[in-house]
Amino acid sequence: MPTSIEILQEKGRRLRVHSLTSTTEAGSGHPSSCLSAADLMSVIFFREMRFDPHDPKNPANDRFFLSKGHAAPLLYAAYAEAGILDVTQLPTLRKLDSVLEGHPTPRLRWVDVATGSLGQGLSAGLGSALAARIDGLPYDTFVLLGDGECAEGAVWEAAALASYYKSSNLYAAVDVNGIGQSQRTMDGFDTQRFVAKFRASGWYALAVDGHSYPDLMNAFDRCRAEAGDKPRVIVARTLKGKGVSMLEDKEGWHGKPVPKADLEKALSELSQPYAPNGFQPNPRPRPNSAAPQPAPEIAPTRKTGDSVATREAYGDALAKLAPLDPRVIVLDGDTKNSTFSEKVLKTKPEHFIEMFIAEQNMVGVAMGLAARGKIPFVSTFAAFLSRAHDHIRMAGVSGLNMKFCGSHCGVSIGDDGPSQMGLEDLAMFRPIPDCAVLYPCDAVATERLVMEAARRDGMCYIRTTRPKTPVLYANDEQFPIGGCKVLRQSPKDNAAVVGAGVTVFEALKAADALAKEGIMIRVIDAYSVKPIDRQTLSAAARDVGGKMIVVEDHYFDGGLGDAVLNAVGDQAKIVKLAVTEIPRSGPPEALLDKYGISSRHIADAVRRLA
Amino acid sequence: MPTSIEILQEKGRRLRVHSLTSTTEAGSGHPSSCLSAADLMSVIFFREMRFDPHDPKNPANDRFFLSKGHAAPLLYAAYAEAGILDVTQLPTLRKLDSVLEGHPTPRLRWVDVATGSLGQGLSAGLGSALAARIDGLPYDTFVLLGDGECAEGAVWEAAALASYYKSSNLYAAVDVNGIGQSQRTMDGFDTQRFVAKFRASGWYALAVDGHSYPDLMNAFDRCRAEAGDKPRVIVARTLKGKGVSMLEDKEGWHGKPVPKADLEKALSELSQPYAPNGFQPNPRPRPNSAAPQPAPEIAPTRKTGDSVATREAYGDALAKLAPLDPRVIVLDGDTKNSTFSEKVLKTKPEHFIEMFIAEQNMVGVAMGLAARGKIPFVSTFAAFLSRAHDHIRMAGVSGLNMKFCGSHCGVSIGDDGPSQMGLEDLAMFRPIPDCAVLYPCDAVATERLVMEAARRDGMCYIRTTRPKTPVLYANDEQFPIGGCKVLRQSPKDNAAVVGAGVTVFEALKAADALAKEGIMIRVIDAYSVKPIDRQTLSAAARDVGGKMIVVEDHYFDGGLGDAVLNAVGDQAKIVKLAVTEIPRSGPPEALLDKYGISSRHIADAVRRLA
Repeated sequence: MPTSIEILQEKGRRLRVHSLTSTTEAGSGHPSSCLSAADLMSVIFFREMRFDPHDPKNPANDRFFLSKGHAAPLLYAAYAEAGILDVTQLPTLRKLDSVLEGHPTPRLRWVDVATGSLGQGLSAGLGSALAARIDGLPYDTFVLLGDGECAEGAVWEAAALASYYKSSNLYAAVDVNGIGQSQRTMDGFDTQRFVAKFRASGWYALAVDGHSYPDLMNAFDRCRAEAGDKPRVIVARTLKGKGVSMLEDKEGWHGKPVPKADLEKALSELSQPYAPNGFQPNPRPRPNSAAPQPAPEIAPTRKTGDSVATREAYGDALAKLAPLDPRVIVLDGDTKNSTFSEKVLKTKPEHFIEMFIAEQNMVGVAMGLAARGKIPFVSTFAAFLSRAHDHIRMAGVSGLNMKFCGSHCGVSIGDDGPSQMGLEDLAMFRPIPDCAVLYPCDAVATERLVMEAARRDGMCYIRTTRPKTPVLYANDEQFPIGGCKVLRQSPKDNAAVVGAGVTVFEALKAADALAKEGIMIRVIDAYSVKPIDRQTLSAAARDVGGKMIVVEDHYFDGGLGDAVLNAVGDQAKIVKLAVTEIPRSGPPEALLDKYGISSRHIADAVRRLA
Repeated sequence: MPTSIEILQEKGRRLRVHSLTSTTEAGSGHPSSCLSAADLMSVIFFREMRFDPHDPKNPANDRFFLSKGHAAPLLYAAYAEAGILDVTQLPTLRKLDSVLEGHPTPRLRWVDVATGSLGQGLSAGLGSALAARIDGLPYDTFVLLGDGECAEGAVWEAAALASYYKSSNLYAAVDVNGIGQSQRTMDGFDTQRFVAKFRASGWYALAVDGHSYPDLMNAFDRCRAEAGDKPRVIVARTLKGKGVSMLEDKEGWHGKPVPKADLEKALSELSQPYAPNGFQPNPRPRPNSAAPQPAPEIAPTRKTGDSVATREAYGDALAKLAPLDPRVIVLDGDTKNSTFSEKVLKTKPEHFIEMFIAEQNMVGVAMGLAARGKIPFVSTFAAFLSRAHDHIRMAGVSGLNMKFCGSHCGVSIGDDGPSQMGLEDLAMFRPIPDCAVLYPCDAVATERLVMEAARRDGMCYIRTTRPKTPVLYANDEQFPIGGCKVLRQSPKDNAAVVGAGVTVFEALKAADALAKEGIMIRVIDAYSVKPIDRQTLSAAARDVGGKMIVVEDHYFDGGLGDAVLNAVGDQAKIVKLAVTEIPRSGPPEALLDKYGISSRHIADAVRRLA
């Protein structure tokens, strides 16, 4: 039977008390942002949601995403009141050794994705809701948003897609307290503006008084009764700091705890219990779920010498992998015929999700899918992954098992011009701790690396190329993450050239040209940019007397050259060949040459060193 | 007098012919995306817009932004038909030496900002519209969007802000052809969905037949008559490939030119002129505009030893600069009380623009402002600039004069936790060609560098720190971009430590501790991360026998350490101290120590080397 209104009110009161005391104890935090949402939170956690407090990973648990991550103390308070945390843990908020961080992270295992960069939670929640459909699981997903963060376009990317996919198992609540960090919000208390926007996006939307329990309870009941196949949102008019007169609807209190001296007075306004504390969770039975196995092996079947674009081999690999591993979900932002992710539509169409032209939401949804045990492959042009950099950053903070593929890297794409060229993608992914950065040069390497990425637990980036390249490797060649391939070597190499992707072939051309002059070079395919094969590079540096050239179709800073510098910079004189200016439209070969990364420039660089 | 309907129709026909012929000649491009918008384009260029075809920089010219940049051939055709380009230039489309690139760039001087990454044009157009208000200029700004790109949230960030600022001098047109790159769009031909979304965002919106000249003309007339203080949008239902039966509303033709063999047949369907070619431009008189002067000098007035956060000094510098240089416009995304950009509100409030929590639109608007001669300072947390990485990338492609400030960098922010820590911002800005990357450690350096950034023509990034740091430098100290400061040196230095920001002070502490052991070190403040002072670093490497340590509050890859490696990696054994894992919440000092970048770790690294 549902929780009584008195108990919900009492939970709301206790959520406020915990939020105030924990932030004052920490000396920082956002209590006023907690207080505005406390009543909403009480109804969501203690009336609407079904979960087993003792089984965080029960696949049938309803899921909750705190998009307004700065209200973390409210979330921790709710966990405590739900019997998930011990109330005595709450004062550890923000301490170095506590999992109760300033903004939620999965270091607390009930948290699916880290939040705190605003406007990401609805996408992650949508990913969770889509995962329920894919797995045929009964759980619902709830997302609590702030009003200020609804200025982020990513929220509306998620809203549009949720209605397109009829995600009726997705519940959003917007805490409209009208005050941002530095001033009143754009739309103030205009809840009808929010309702109109959500309805225009195809949602079932209601505006309510966010501090009236009867209104909130009725709103959720109406959602369940009337929303049909639409995602549903409750737009709640609230007051920041609600319940404490010194904070209530006051500007200048964002991100400020109540001073120790004022805490007692503040708490005294919340001292009257509504009911004895109590709450009966209503968990769903745990469905059987098999322990996840490592992703299966797949093997390429190429003919050496054929010409195949690595982007196409990426699609081939996914088409093989997806039917074998139900966790593999492929996403694309209306570029599937360019990234070739569309090949999955032929072998496992129900595991492909078209995300349309909204890269932030694509990554945010993938975060939600990964949190639910999927292995998402996020596919678009490398250049356009930069659109989702903040989401990718937060996926890193969340420690999620996600795979990214950026196609159309570098000037080698040719005449579409600089806006379409991925020239900073390696620099974007390399800094992320524990993110593997993979850059295959041929179809065999690509298929192997897609498999390796799927089998590795953690974030991986795969960089693919637009033009066709020759199949260089035998089908049984292995490509462990962290390795590289020595393609040319002799006892009397004068220099070593390290390339990846298209530049591997430019290096081989240069090697042939130089051989005619009696200059021998070692050619290395650094398909694993991170982790990089320090040992092999070090041996090469030693063997060639420290004369090393790195050539890459990427901007000068942050790419393969810097990876090599970090590995063996102290053992070699390293010449970097890379793109050093904003490139322009033109034929691929002409651009490789114009920007100094063609075989001619490699050979010249070797001659200057040798 | 307005252009006749027959001439508009004839212009539309000629725009189609040019779009087809130039793309077939180029062998690539997006003719079908041009044909759907040709009639809209004709009415906008040849009826609605006022400009002087011979004076691209006339400040009173109406401005046009092609958000759907892949329709570049249509734009070039319109320029040709307007008498701006010679028709004989059109066949140079996409050639290596042509300014008619695959997607528009300012290499063609009529283009204000590069487009081609979708969903950015409305923001840039809004920036242009806001600039008109700031300068009291009469021009209107027109933006042509595709329907597919309206899935990008950035479009809705711009829409919301345009209505908030009552930008009635902004005209948008959405070309609803219903077909994306790889399939039908999310909303297909549901123009009412677009109208509802724009109206919910506070726009005056009309849905029309995008191929009916009377409808289009009437729609623009109604906008001018009825829209009042609202931004206005025309949602035009069109057919992709309109006018050529082999393309019309057909999937599979995105980004494909008509084969040479079929061109004649395609053109034959467009061979009937509507009217003799003719068009009378209706330019506004050119207002007097003074030639821009270099930004003025400002000087800090600090007391050595005082404690001031560099983020606060950033605000102080802007507060001094803005009243002296009318081009300086300060933007912030509801963090102005944290970045201290709010200090400008005290000295030049009309040059501060609150952008609310929408970083993509903030950067996009700044692109439009910069294109109109402003010097925008884009301010938010360093971590949240990653939200706008794609826009920043496109600003780089556009070669715009923009300044960015990222505050709250690194683990030194403390207990708000990893979601708020800028740990990849240096890696994001360093790859951009010609972007200066500045990282002051004290208030004097910050004020000087803000001034240097304003005086430099080009993109600059300034990184500021949350905690207070001591004022280290005298007020008359100069900080040229490309320099550095040697803070400690002796004839018998055992090693050199290179830091920036907070780590400069950790390095100084380490120097004091080591000095007690008789170990002398050189301490260098690398306030200019890019360009970096190769000469001074090289001299230091030589003097200390190549023992160098770089310490930074940034992830290991892509930051100051890599900048130093690139400068003197061949002259020194470089030990990098940086953040190598996802950090957590805690006190700043504890975090600096936990992640290995405190004075203790620096001293240990020196002892190991020395």
